[in-house]
Amino acid sequence: MAATFQTTRRVQFAETDMAGILHFANYYRMMEEVEHAFWRSKGTSVLARNGAQEISWPRVAASCEFSAPARFEDELALMLSVVKVSNRSVTFEIDFRRDETRLALGRVTAVCCAIVEDRFQPIPIPGDLRGMLEA
Amino acid sequence: MAATFQTTRRVQFAETDMAGILHFANYYRMMEEVEHAFWRSKGTSVLARNGAQEISWPRVAASCEFSAPARFEDELALMLSVVKVSNRSVTFEIDFRRDETRLALGRVTAVCCAIVEDRFQPIPIPGDLRGMLEA
Amino acid sequence: MAATFQTTRRVQFAETDMAGILHFANYYRMMEEVEHAFWRSKGTSVLARNGAQEISWPRVAASCEFSAPARFEDELALMLSVVKVSNRSVTFEIDFRRDETRLALGRVTAVCCAIVEDRFQPIPIPGDLRGMLEA
Amino acid sequence: MAATFQTTRRVQFAETDMAGILHFANYYRMMEEVEHAFWRSKGTSVLARNGAQEISWPRVAASCEFSAPARFEDELALMLSVVKVSNRSVTFEIDFRRDETRLALGRVTAVCCAIVEDRFQPIPIPGDLRGMLEA
Repeated sequence: MAATFQTTRRVQFAETDMAGILHFANYYRMMEEVEHAFWRSKGTSVLARNGAQEISWPRVAASCEFSAPARFEDELALMLSVVKVSNRSVTFEIDFRRDETRLALGRVTAVCCAIVEDRFQPIPIPGDLRGMLEA
Repeated sequence: MAATFQTTRRVQFAETDMAGILHFANYYRMMEEVEHAFWRSKGTSVLARNGAQEISWPRVAASCEFSAPARFEDELALMLSVVKVSNRSVTFEIDFRRDETRLALGRVTAVCCAIVEDRFQPIPIPGDLRGMLEA
Repeated sequence: MAATFQTTRRVQFAETDMAGILHFANYYRMMEEVEHAFWRSKGTSVLARNGAQEISWPRVAASCEFSAPARFEDELALMLSVVKVSNRSVTFEIDFRRDETRLALGRVTAVCCAIVEDRFQPIPIPGDLRGMLEA
Repeated sequence: MAATFQTTRRVQFAETDMAGILHFANYYRMMEEVEHAFWRSKGTSVLARNGAQEISWPRVAASCEFSAPARFEDELALMLSVVKVSNRSVTFEIDFRRDETRLALGRVTAVCCAIVEDRFQPIPIPGDLRGMLEA
């Protein structure tokens, strides 16, 4: 069974646009926020260490489908599920809800990388992090 | 033959993150910027009028695949293609290049809507706008 | 005695820049976030109604001094004080703290406006809102 | 005579808010953009090198006064002036104009720093950079 996690997040004024709704690019920022909160809930960080290695998770793909607009001061539920864990990457799905209504459904795939001289080098997901994703 | 359009866009400092690269959510903002520049190049705006109707194009889906990072002060070529025009929606593809290297490839689908009492109501794409998309 | 109010706010990854710190423009967004949370704590919203009037508070000035950088995942205390209430405007001061350390000190002055045909028209602060600011 | 420099910048959709205007925090981002364009116009970058030293310019203060709103697709003139150069810092003033109308007037003070083990260490402004500021 893959990990699931939930946070709530209020829509801020600066995140709205002149159409009066949450600007669509902000959903991708929120996806990342809940992903990082997930790692914190496991007692670690998206920027973890693996022995001497510094680990980061650059995104290789992100998509989102938008069903209904969110508005200023809405309190959204962000429900994260781990939908796929492969050797070097993980795919999260994020369900954006306001009360019972789905507003958007996003997916993001991130690759486990060691940072080597400021460059990203893909590595197999370390066992302890894999365990958190598969818990 | 569907419309194509190109702009260039420099990566700004505030758009980078602590990993030293263009933060992935900003690609979605840039997709929208080139889409809006496309409409301007046709002599109109993404916020057009159709007689008494005010028209807007809310997004229903957006995705992006990231191949290589962009960095501060990089000058990116954003190449927009209209890949699908249906009765009420249009799909754009945006190819992000730095010199000959593809950094990312994005897709966004927007629905033609009339704004009625602050709400979005899908309508068939007006003929003059359709002509610009299919030119 | 003027009103005071406090929230906490975690620094998000997308808010950092390639220097590895919270980008300075985000302090202004956070100032606004705590201001809006203040209004909510009073049972109203920054977008209030005054009878038939829709009220908004555009900024006329905002400044911030930065003493020490904030970093990813820092949990900041944002302490808002109402430092001046005049006939039509209010000045808030926001003290950004990480533990006991002041990171920044900001000020923002907003003018009470009625929205009339999409334009801002300054008005005297309605009595009930004034009461909240002076409480 | 201190240096002056000018760019133009179109207001993007994602930079507007539900009040229909350019969100005030974006003025600070634009101030930084024109500052960085100024350095590029001099043949260098805000992230310069001084021999073996890597140089950065963290902000210690920024303020802005807002006179009139900017709206989507407005083309703004951003006029930068160097108003003060001291031993270790520089103050820029940025005048935001739409045609002949001043929309905002901002000031930002940045300190010349060497980056030493990921920390900012103030240093006297190197002579070649000082020359560009005072030209």
